[in-house]
Amino acid sequence: MKRIAILGSTGSIGRQTLDVVRAFPDEFDVVALSAWSNRDLLLAQAKEFNPTLLSSKEQWPAESLPPGTHIAETLEEIVTNPDVDLIIQGMVGNIGLLPTLQALGAGKQVAMANKEPIVMAGELLMQAATRGGGQLLPVDSEPSAIWQCLQGEETQRTVRRLIITASGGALRDLPLDEIAKVTPARALKHPTWDMGKKITIDCATLMNKGFEVIESHWLFDMPWDQVDVVIHHQSIIHSMVEFTDGSMKAQMGAPDMRLPIQYAMFYPKRMASEEIPRFDPIAIGSLTFEEMNPDRYPCFVTALEAGHAGGTYPTVLSASDETAVDLFLKGRIGFTDIHRLVASTLERHESKERPTLEDILSADEWARQAVLSATENS
Amino acid sequence: MKRIAILGSTGSIGRQTLDVVRAFPDEFDVVALSAWSNRDLLLAQAKEFNPTLLSSKEQWPAESLPPGTHIAETLEEIVTNPDVDLIIQGMVGNIGLLPTLQALGAGKQVAMANKEPIVMAGELLMQAATRGGGQLLPVDSEPSAIWQCLQGEETQRTVRRLIITASGGALRDLPLDEIAKVTPARALKHPTWDMGKKITIDCATLMNKGFEVIESHWLFDMPWDQVDVVIHHQSIIHSMVEFTDGSMKAQMGAPDMRLPIQYAMFYPKRMASEEIPRFDPIAIGSLTFEEMNPDRYPCFVTALEAGHAGGTYPTVLSASDETAVDLFLKGRIGFTDIHRLVASTLERHESKERPTLEDILSADEWARQAVLSATENS
Repeated sequence: MKRIAILGSTGSIGRQTLDVVRAFPDEFDVVALSAWSNRDLLLAQAKEFNPTLLSSKEQWPAESLPPGTHIAETLEEIVTNPDVDLIIQGMVGNIGLLPTLQALGAGKQVAMANKEPIVMAGELLMQAATRGGGQLLPVDSEPSAIWQCLQGEETQRTVRRLIITASGGALRDLPLDEIAKVTPARALKHPTWDMGKKITIDCATLMNKGFEVIESHWLFDMPWDQVDVVIHHQSIIHSMVEFTDGSMKAQMGAPDMRLPIQYAMFYPKRMASEEIPRFDPIAIGSLTFEEMNPDRYPCFVTALEAGHAGGTYPTVLSASDETAVDLFLKGRIGFTDIHRLVASTLERHESKERPTLEDILSADEWARQAVLSATENS
Repeated sequence: MKRIAILGSTGSIGRQTLDVVRAFPDEFDVVALSAWSNRDLLLAQAKEFNPTLLSSKEQWPAESLPPGTHIAETLEEIVTNPDVDLIIQGMVGNIGLLPTLQALGAGKQVAMANKEPIVMAGELLMQAATRGGGQLLPVDSEPSAIWQCLQGEETQRTVRRLIITASGGALRDLPLDEIAKVTPARALKHPTWDMGKKITIDCATLMNKGFEVIESHWLFDMPWDQVDVVIHHQSIIHSMVEFTDGSMKAQMGAPDMRLPIQYAMFYPKRMASEEIPRFDPIAIGSLTFEEMNPDRYPCFVTALEAGHAGGTYPTVLSASDETAVDLFLKGRIGFTDIHRLVASTLERHESKERPTLEDILSADEWARQAVLSATENS
């Protein structure tokens, strides 16, 4: 039985993780649950799964908890708990960095759906994993696809390039001159995936795809020039790996997050599931590939530049994007302002080479304030 | 250095195998070459690669051989030679059965491009491999694709089905009522692959795809109802594996036999090659899938029936097909006669359950004679 902790248990990833636990009740013991603000759902989850530890931003009277469940003082208490083998990291945004660092430092496996920490501090996380004996397992469907394609292969010696697929997001077919006026509701209509709000907006800007390039660079220790992106509307091929002998492998499946979540939860085993929908090649008929148009997706270009530049630029990229997307979702800025704010914040940033955790947290804070004051002043 | 023997060195597979040896001269020692009738090319190959052993149907004076090269009395002498690690089996048709059995019995690795022996005597070959410690490595692009997709996976427990792709062959777009009049030259125009004549005709009838289902059944120990076929015109996805968790893997590449040949030769390593062409998803644009039309491909249906029926039916399938294709290539019968002769021979056959090698050789001989006399009498 794997003993798991779920960070962000009331979010999209957390709820689907618990679906997997429900489907395999004998395989997992839910030791801890943590969520930010959805108190009612968290309490219902606690009653169903009887975790030892619970964490949320609110203080709760002990009598409202199921018997045997205690409130954790910090997320660190959860992610370093000796009774936890695997942490499902389903938090949203940069705030997931600290618990991920602590978990890796404590030698835990971390199934990582929360890509921002890898974007903002990839090198620190990989160092923490090496030092502490922890391991990052991809949950995001694209890195999971690459990971699955690499099973049984020698990654460093035999990979020519990784090819990450991109649906093109909610606005892929919108005329370029209409993009500035897009509403949050319109940008949240993802053509193939049903996900949380922040990542869905990042898909519309293709910032998310830039994040995935950065994520894959770190997770698979792959040079920048060996990670490519191709537009693939159907979201069936989740990503591909080209090997040095000319062979290519693709991992495919219906666009359903339960597959990569379950794969990471059971790794290195696969377990049968009748609930995850099947991809039928004949029903789909055709899988298409197109070059990405950088004019349509300036956030992608900016993300790659920040990734290549290194230092604290990727931190500022992620923090300014998170702040700008939040402002967009609240109706405070327009869709194209997301890129404008991210790019101008990066331009004004003085990056630190080989940043420490303090450097990263301080760059993160600086970038958030920079986006907010640029918005207030405009 | 791997010490290799090539059976069928002057054929399409043999020549491409030697291309790989030329590209990696420090990795392979060519210990033996064998070919049926192309004496000049065999001699040129012997001069270039200095094998210890040579075999062909002709008797040669010792002085015509390069120094250090001797004539092998039998193929058995080659395939059981203690100096040989890996045999590339590029012979054509059922005649490849005996040396393959002997090689497996002697504990050799056999890279198998010659699928007819597996079709006619799959169970015997797998038993010989188990007993002798030999191993069959797929070279055919479809089983090679499945094999590559299965690296790092638990085949028996986690595979839901294998999906073999089929280009549809040279006549895929021809109106059904024109197929009877097809000439050998027309049927040899394969849309995507450049291969030997026998297999190219088997592709036009889709008999070859039936053979691959039977081959995959044996190579991967997969029940019949877990091997499917889908029409895929581009011949880029060489085959797919669907796992029980809903995940699917595809192996892709330009249609070039050097890739699966090289993969089997280096297995379990991959080696970089700049000579094998690369598949560019954006240049291809789209990959399509269609259901196979059984009315267009009766040979495929008959092959599956013979495979399922077992006993000596698959032997008769392969022997009658080989004889009929030879007659078609010689202009003695029409294209649709291939299926007519194979089906009628199978109908008249009295199959033996759990056949011995003698049963198989006798069924093979019976089927050849049956096709020839049916042709002479018509």
